[in-house]
Amino acid sequence: MIDSNSILNHINEYIQRIEYHKYPSSLYEPIKYVLSLGGKRIRPQLMLMAYNLYRDDIDTIMPNACALEMFHNFTLLHDDLMDNADMRRGNPTVHVKWHQNAAILSGDTMLLLAYNMFIETLSRYEIQAFQRACNTFCEATLAVSEGQQYDIDFETRLDVTEDEYIEMIRLKTSVLLACALKIGAELASASVDDAQNLYDFGEKIGLAFQLQDDLLDVYGDPSVFGKKIGGDILCNKKTYMLINALQLASNTDKELLLHWINKKQFNPEDKIASVTTIYDTVGIRNLCKSKIEYYFEEAINSLSKVGVSEDKKLGLKEFAYKLLNREK
Amino acid sequence: MIDSNSILNHINEYIQRIEYHKYPSSLYEPIKYVLSLGGKRIRPQLMLMAYNLYRDDIDTIMPNACALEMFHNFTLLHDDLMDNADMRRGNPTVHVKWHQNAAILSGDTMLLLAYNMFIETLSRYEIQAFQRACNTFCEATLAVSEGQQYDIDFETRLDVTEDEYIEMIRLKTSVLLACALKIGAELASASVDDAQNLYDFGEKIGLAFQLQDDLLDVYGDPSVFGKKIGGDILCNKKTYMLINALQLASNTDKELLLHWINKKQFNPEDKIASVTTIYDTVGIRNLCKSKIEYYFEEAINSLSKVGVSEDKKLGLKEFAYKLLNREK
Repeated sequence: MIDSNSILNHINEYIQRIEYHKYPSSLYEPIKYVLSLGGKRIRPQLMLMAYNLYRDDIDTIMPNACALEMFHNFTLLHDDLMDNADMRRGNPTVHVKWHQNAAILSGDTMLLLAYNMFIETLSRYEIQAFQRACNTFCEATLAVSEGQQYDIDFETRLDVTEDEYIEMIRLKTSVLLACALKIGAELASASVDDAQNLYDFGEKIGLAFQLQDDLLDVYGDPSVFGKKIGGDILCNKKTYMLINALQLASNTDKELLLHWINKKQFNPEDKIASVTTIYDTVGIRNLCKSKIEYYFEEAINSLSKVGVSEDKKLGLKEFAYKLLNREK
Repeated sequence: MIDSNSILNHINEYIQRIEYHKYPSSLYEPIKYVLSLGGKRIRPQLMLMAYNLYRDDIDTIMPNACALEMFHNFTLLHDDLMDNADMRRGNPTVHVKWHQNAAILSGDTMLLLAYNMFIETLSRYEIQAFQRACNTFCEATLAVSEGQQYDIDFETRLDVTEDEYIEMIRLKTSVLLACALKIGAELASASVDDAQNLYDFGEKIGLAFQLQDDLLDVYGDPSVFGKKIGGDILCNKKTYMLINALQLASNTDKELLLHWINKKQFNPEDKIASVTTIYDTVGIRNLCKSKIEYYFEEAINSLSKVGVSEDKKLGLKEFAYKLLNREK
């Protein structure tokens, strides 16, 4: 068993050493920039940890793990362009630092490099194992696109249900975490059941993780959270919080909520304070917390079914625990 | 041997029958739209014809062939967005008909669907053949990105050399045609030499094809060409024509050319007429024509080295001939 800190270092070293064609540098500079901004490297870590449940030679799957990280960073790059976001991880986004077309084309190139990195490992694995892992990878990339499309579609809707929202974040966030774990298991030639249980573990952790994000946006500690509190409220993002508040608030509070949603000009602090008060009244904080706990327990339940000794699972359990007790 | 018309029908039927997830329809509608606009389907045709030199079961590689067409249409979709082009094949482009974000996200999805379609055929082939074809596919997608980046970089340069230009169109256009042929040969388990000779054939045809495009933009028959004559001249595109005119024109003509390039406000017809006169004086038309002929001969030379009977090659020869005697 390799500890999670040394896995993270390993990943960062691998990413730094990826060799790109030298030219055109205008294509590759934005890619290197995006990957140099860091991040938690959750997806490759999960893949390596799942693989490590069965095998020790984690260097073998390093390209597959980093392909997932490359893909994830591609989605951030294009999402930031679509959302017109200026900053990512405390630095200007690619379309701000370079140009919109650099964001499009370098992003496209990251997507295809992710696939290329993954495919190029074909000869490393037993062919059936590789084929399964490939299918899982293909499923993941498509799910993320679909999730992002739902997210866009929800912007102009006020009647998004909780179920629709959970399905959206499942596609946009959870499937990639779930697939990271499943691919790790598949490439290690683990049993189909183990691969599926690890998928389920990742899926539920992903849902809990995203709900945690919604919660922190309202109730996080501004000195730790890393972004400004209330961002979701200001742009009327259909989060778990807002969807449930629209559902559960008294008529008066619902009217006030709609008033803020439709208001074009306002003092940001006033809107955040007023909406948060409604959330407090409805008790959204605890509702969200118990949903997070529910998914966390489901996740641990799936992990318990994975057919390896309990001590081997400690790393994943601890990782999930840390992820959900984060403040940023 | 299957004739080229029936191959084209086959491709169009296959593309029409591609099954997408039903939702979110906002993601898949633009994709269906783009693929419904037609086009010459050159790349899948080339792949099927190359495969058909060795095998008759062309249905086997239909997903691989159409993956290339999907990829090609993805590049058109994103290029149109980057170029801010309103029309494609006589219809509004996706960012005009829907929204910029639809063009980005549906385009991304076409790219990953292209890969998914290709990868999902893994079990159909002898594994080494598939691996070679995969590598060729990965090479092609990256080359197109790099070619597009050079094309963008050249927009703000006046010192682009002919060699640089040829390398740009090789990456942006030729490699994909070359790879289409090579993949067809590889998936048919043809010899490495045959695959390479077919690649070289496609590469040279691609160069000739792009130079033909440059030529038609100036000297095409407006009633046949499909787009307006002179589009490249109006936007100072660094084509084979302009690069050579800047190189070969007399000092007076070169000054006049630079005057038109730098002029912000002008009557389009005046600019086209004046630049065309300079091209006429320099004799760019014949220069370009002989370059096209040179590449065409090189292509035929490579085809002649392919180790199948001459009558089997007639289809490809005829296809190349038609492609280069097109008026649109």
